[in-house]
Amino acid sequence: MKIDDLVLVSIDDHVVEPPDMFRNHVPAKWADQAPRVVTDDAGVEQWVYRGRATGIIGLNAVVSWPAEEWGFDPAGFAEMRPGAYDIHDRVRDMDRNGILASMCFPTFAGFSAGHLNHVKDDVTVVMVQAYNDWHVDEWAGTYPGRFLPLALLPTWDPKLMVAEIRRVAAKGAKAVTMPELPHLEGLPSYHDLGFWGPVFQALSETGLVMCLHIGIGFGALKLAADSPVDNMIILATQISALAAQDLLWGPAFRTYPDLKVAFSEAGIGWIPFYLDRCDRHYTNQKWLRRDFGGRLPSEVFREHSLACYVTDPAALKGRHEIGIDTIAWECDYPHSDSIWPDAPEFVLAELNSAGVPDNEIDKITWQNACRFFGWDPFAVIPREQATVGALRAKATDVETAVVPRAEWARRYAAKHPQPA
Amino acid sequence: MKIDDLVLVSIDDHVVEPPDMFRNHVPAKWADQAPRVVTDDAGVEQWVYRGRATGIIGLNAVVSWPAEEWGFDPAGFAEMRPGAYDIHDRVRDMDRNGILASMCFPTFAGFSAGHLNHVKDDVTVVMVQAYNDWHVDEWAGTYPGRFLPLALLPTWDPKLMVAEIRRVAAKGAKAVTMPELPHLEGLPSYHDLGFWGPVFQALSETGLVMCLHIGIGFGALKLAADSPVDNMIILATQISALAAQDLLWGPAFRTYPDLKVAFSEAGIGWIPFYLDRCDRHYTNQKWLRRDFGGRLPSEVFREHSLACYVTDPAALKGRHEIGIDTIAWECDYPHSDSIWPDAPEFVLAELNSAGVPDNEIDKITWQNACRFFGWDPFAVIPREQATVGALRAKATDVETAVVPRAEWARRYAAKHPQPA
Repeated sequence: MKIDDLVLVSIDDHVVEPPDMFRNHVPAKWADQAPRVVTDDAGVEQWVYRGRATGIIGLNAVVSWPAEEWGFDPAGFAEMRPGAYDIHDRVRDMDRNGILASMCFPTFAGFSAGHLNHVKDDVTVVMVQAYNDWHVDEWAGTYPGRFLPLALLPTWDPKLMVAEIRRVAAKGAKAVTMPELPHLEGLPSYHDLGFWGPVFQALSETGLVMCLHIGIGFGALKLAADSPVDNMIILATQISALAAQDLLWGPAFRTYPDLKVAFSEAGIGWIPFYLDRCDRHYTNQKWLRRDFGGRLPSEVFREHSLACYVTDPAALKGRHEIGIDTIAWECDYPHSDSIWPDAPEFVLAELNSAGVPDNEIDKITWQNACRFFGWDPFAVIPREQATVGALRAKATDVETAVVPRAEWARRYAAKHPQPA
Repeated sequence: MKIDDLVLVSIDDHVVEPPDMFRNHVPAKWADQAPRVVTDDAGVEQWVYRGRATGIIGLNAVVSWPAEEWGFDPAGFAEMRPGAYDIHDRVRDMDRNGILASMCFPTFAGFSAGHLNHVKDDVTVVMVQAYNDWHVDEWAGTYPGRFLPLALLPTWDPKLMVAEIRRVAAKGAKAVTMPELPHLEGLPSYHDLGFWGPVFQALSETGLVMCLHIGIGFGALKLAADSPVDNMIILATQISALAAQDLLWGPAFRTYPDLKVAFSEAGIGWIPFYLDRCDRHYTNQKWLRRDFGGRLPSEVFREHSLACYVTDPAALKGRHEIGIDTIAWECDYPHSDSIWPDAPEFVLAELNSAGVPDNEIDKITWQNACRFFGWDPFAVIPREQATVGALRAKATDVETAVVPRAEWARRYAAKHPQPA
């Protein structure tokens, strides 16, 4: 495989929502209740919705910053590489990184809309819909063929969720982002089909994928109060096995054979161990009389799951223990784990180290994701224009240097002069 | 490798403590305060210590029961295969299973002595010491060369722990069993060297291994209230990465280069994924300025750790990603995950499936464990008498049939007639 012949579809990136995102999508009646960006007395920009403020931490927008400037301190729009929030810059950064298409998770809204859904009422439904309209029509819609639209849901009410799933499916969304472990948010767990059953049914019928992004369920771990921040970053993927467990060993996967789940940014190395453990438990603890319909739990897991990774070198060597049709790569732009602008080189080197042949590289870098999300990568952009080589050829002028936060802020000020 | 030529050292089995275990080991002054077995009104035997009762669940003694009789309901001594609690029967069951040597974790006392340590006073120190004396002198001492003695600690007090570590080391203990995540038990976390430092120092100086058995830290996971029992059994190994994280990324491993930790029954398949994630975090998140002394976190982990598994087929294929000197097998007799009486066949088939060569089989089945615990397997029993073939030749008369609980109880009653 030559670098230039790779096709890269990244099914986990992030959009830092631009301050004007709600402008065109909230009916006038509710316009004054829409989330808005407020600059506090310390000069920090925060999104405020219904009295609750949410900042944007630096780690969520590090792309092209010097490593020593990363951190949890808040980042304002001025300091960010514009590709974080500006659709035109984003697509140029994708071109430079050889990325044909991207699925973008929210930032201020919360991975499963928690920063909107803290107020559970009709106004929030309007805002969730406005978010989705912006995301599908404006963010993804500006560049057809470059994005797999991902919708939020009003997670507190199954009827509202079902209605929104059908609405966004009709307008082209390919997935919804949902809680890893809803019981942590005061909702019924995924074992409760009385609550989640209609949602799983609607997802099954529309073909939309349920994305469970790491981080949402981090509260599942009771860590020591004096444990360092490394624990959170390194252990976040441990939650994915907990989420898989609830779906696989609860009724969800076995009741809804068409339900599809992407374990977003979960890594893939936990899967062979987890599935061996599931199969051993199933065949060993027969007294529990679990019924997987004549199959093994590992088989049922693979029928429903897409395993998503940024970098996972050892796991790629054991790719057939995971399932070669179950693995999909992701970029995580503009977060601290992202690989930019050299994703093609990084990804191919890791795949080569693991001895992955060309046909399997294609599965991992685009085919599995496109099949799973029901998205034709070449519907708009022909394959010969979709490769790393073709995309990069359009973006030779994209600046790839390390640029300090202060320099971004200087450029931003020059571009956005304050009224005198 | 021929079955008969295997040498098997199992570094995780369990003793169901016999009712008379304290008889010879508690000074007369405290004899009436020692834990004792009481039969309640429902006929269930329970250990009672200082007002708190602890039963023995069936899953902890299933060996040779029919699968449909497994479960969480309590098991009395009468129903158990005697090898669970009787040292002579145990050694015969080990012979039949080709096991040269075994390290036995507690049952009623709790894996890290929680069922004694709930009362934190001098009397409990006496009972912990009595337990250890029984375990080293009576349980292990009856059959020299067949056991690696494992001691309990009075976990609430570093000075007491240090004293007990030195005392049991002097009498031949090879390891201590400790909490996976002490902060869950109201103790300082392993990040706190003010508390744990002297303990780590004493372990380092004596060469005793710190064993962290799965299950102790299960409370670290906030699972859904309606999740099935499968979750607990399947996910218990997730805690091992949390424990490793506190030791590797906290100061313990880097401050005490000789500290040794066995992740007992933790499985081994989580390790390559975890270590890749650690190394990536270390090299990527440079702003955190962590210092592993010019090495990678994965290297430091391997210097300190022994990874222990019962069955882990996919992980054995990736054994070099774990570290071929880091893996040790265990039997888990008489628990529900144990393999008896055909451990040799099971273990060798799994190793063969993973393509493990003979020299690596020896590492995994005995050499790594013996090196790590500082235990010479052939000091008492010459190698030619220590193999599966030699041990089994002594035990051809051991009954291996499935025997229902009621039949064990009938035999027990016949052997232990009640006074009229």
